[in-house]
Amino acid sequence: MGKSRLEAFSDGVLAIIITIMVLELRVPHGDSLATLHGVLPVFLNYILSFLYIGIYWNNHHHLLHTVHRVNGGILWANLHLLFWLSLFPFVTGWMGENHFAAMPTALYGCVLFMAAIAYSTLQWTIIATEGKTSLLARAVGKDIKGGLSLLGYAGGIALAFRLTWAAQALYVVVALMWLVPDRRIERTMSKEPQSK
Amino acid sequence: MGKSRLEAFSDGVLAIIITIMVLELRVPHGDSLATLHGVLPVFLNYILSFLYIGIYWNNHHHLLHTVHRVNGGILWANLHLLFWLSLFPFVTGWMGENHFAAMPTALYGCVLFMAAIAYSTLQWTIIATEGKTSLLARAVGKDIKGGLSLLGYAGGIALAFRLTWAAQALYVVVALMWLVPDRRIERTMSKEPQSK
Amino acid sequence: MGKSRLEAFSDGVLAIIITIMVLELRVPHGDSLATLHGVLPVFLNYILSFLYIGIYWNNHHHLLHTVHRVNGGILWANLHLLFWLSLFPFVTGWMGENHFAAMPTALYGCVLFMAAIAYSTLQWTIIATEGKTSLLARAVGKDIKGGLSLLGYAGGIALAFRLTWAAQALYVVVALMWLVPDRRIERTMSKEPQSK
Amino acid sequence: MGKSRLEAFSDGVLAIIITIMVLELRVPHGDSLATLHGVLPVFLNYILSFLYIGIYWNNHHHLLHTVHRVNGGILWANLHLLFWLSLFPFVTGWMGENHFAAMPTALYGCVLFMAAIAYSTLQWTIIATEGKTSLLARAVGKDIKGGLSLLGYAGGIALAFRLTWAAQALYVVVALMWLVPDRRIERTMSKEPQSK
Repeated sequence: MGKSRLEAFSDGVLAIIITIMVLELRVPHGDSLATLHGVLPVFLNYILSFLYIGIYWNNHHHLLHTVHRVNGGILWANLHLLFWLSLFPFVTGWMGENHFAAMPTALYGCVLFMAAIAYSTLQWTIIATEGKTSLLARAVGKDIKGGLSLLGYAGGIALAFRLTWAAQALYVVVALMWLVPDRRIERTMSKEPQSK
Repeated sequence: MGKSRLEAFSDGVLAIIITIMVLELRVPHGDSLATLHGVLPVFLNYILSFLYIGIYWNNHHHLLHTVHRVNGGILWANLHLLFWLSLFPFVTGWMGENHFAAMPTALYGCVLFMAAIAYSTLQWTIIATEGKTSLLARAVGKDIKGGLSLLGYAGGIALAFRLTWAAQALYVVVALMWLVPDRRIERTMSKEPQSK
Repeated sequence: MGKSRLEAFSDGVLAIIITIMVLELRVPHGDSLATLHGVLPVFLNYILSFLYIGIYWNNHHHLLHTVHRVNGGILWANLHLLFWLSLFPFVTGWMGENHFAAMPTALYGCVLFMAAIAYSTLQWTIIATEGKTSLLARAVGKDIKGGLSLLGYAGGIALAFRLTWAAQALYVVVALMWLVPDRRIERTMSKEPQSK
Repeated sequence: MGKSRLEAFSDGVLAIIITIMVLELRVPHGDSLATLHGVLPVFLNYILSFLYIGIYWNNHHHLLHTVHRVNGGILWANLHLLFWLSLFPFVTGWMGENHFAAMPTALYGCVLFMAAIAYSTLQWTIIATEGKTSLLARAVGKDIKGGLSLLGYAGGIALAFRLTWAAQALYVVVALMWLVPDRRIERTMSKEPQSK
């Protein structure tokens, strides 16, 4: 029931999140190269957040591909994920405007952490609906990548107050880990007779 | 005629409303935990409004599922609902920035009240089109939940100037009441032979 | 070729225009009823603009319903219409913030006028593609309503500097004229054997 | 796999980019014609950027029409293109607010250049997936128009610091070159037996 509207709504929210983040790049006063300097940290952070939203959209796209029936649990688990992702523009702006200071770096990690928890929740809600022998359950397996990400974000939060740059490096490393495309669902599917 | 575009447009508007509310979370100056303090009331209010828009999207999704023909009345009743929902970012920001003062709390209740009226109007417009023996008419029944919500919002507006916290608690309680998923339409449908 | 993407893109743009207009309702400082007073003119103007975008979405929806083939001309005529509609948030904000002063009222009329011209252009471009004996050509006929609207907007621009309130009244009257639903296309269609 | 969601997401992002650019047209204080004067450069630049996003949407629409299978490479090449296009509101605002000064004009050219590179990358990624004898490969051919555009943007960046107006004229000329609709894909397709 209504999987296409769930996808359309999620696509809409993700498209808006990824685009309004650019509004945090405030147009500077003055026309010299130096005035751009103040925008640079927000810009660098914008690239990282753009990457993360892109990764979430990509994975969300694969995840919903495996869903046959949408129920109330999936709807709310999905909204819960969108809630945490909707905080990206705020934490991206705060971290960028304060030139990657410790506290904003830690908060950025918290939002990354909670979004990852919400994604896992959505994943397990779908598996609970589709059954443990479902395509998704086999594709996800032990979800090592998801566990590593949570560790990375937690490490980043812990490091933020001592080695702030190391926390930021961890966030970048986790993003790059996801950029390597997640072929698990595609691979498991290609072994199946297609039902579409 | 054109139900899919009505859904797409509504999804678009709801996705934007739920996302631009986060723009009211203004990035604070300063990088300490204390500077986040000023944002906290807007954030708490953002959670409540996110929940409400999520509930409306969820219910709207079920409501339109029962529609077979879209006519001018349904189009305008739908736009009327979207109008009141579009005021959420404004009242959310005003209530949050004034730390839940009395007047913004009352106005928030007014918008909740008007949105609920608009949702009922849409519901009855659809029933008038589909017929009193339609799926939706039987599923909605006497619409006790809708009536209780209106009472809750009206109570909140009345309480806002005496017991402001009680008004806010009422808004939260009504939201939680709706979080319990509305199985009426799903239940009535599952008793039917599916026509799709 | 690609009519559904044309509709989806237009729906997206119209949904965003109708929603970001609310961002011109700046959250006021202070929590008394009096502080809301300053927002009132923008709010009243927001209602009018919301109505106009709703009318355009409604008519656009009917218009594209008659299209069978999308070509470059239709794509650009459609973008031209979206361009003028995208100026609604700006002129709405300017007119509202200046409490319906003469110059903003005239500019609002200019944008209404140009949007109406762009809508007619799109209409004639579609008729040129579909043929003069097409469904749309017969439904539109002499387009008296379109002509009256142009007259109304032109009258509003002329009146703005003398009787500003009369100009605004004209804009409201034209909007109400369109609220009476445009049954021409629906009526003409119902006489046809459906091909769909 | 999932071409429709790729289109829906891209449509969403492009619709938002083209619409939030208008937020850079800040509502001026004062109600005289003179106050509009300050907004004029941003407005002129808005028209140019609207045209460019329109061209990209149009071409993207044709490009994806030729795609049969979506893979990770295409997803990320598409996101890369959307990233550069998402910077349009920022550079449009910066160039407009500084009345077309040299540095913002050069930066505008850089974003145009990078977006064109990203578009080519997407094109070649699709051709690599679909095969060198595919419809798209034959339609694109040597892509002279794409090459000329890159030359135009590079020329604009070089000229920005000497003949700023000439740089801007180059950007306009390249846009007009694309307005002449790109019939290559349509033409090549019409020679084919349709498989749809």
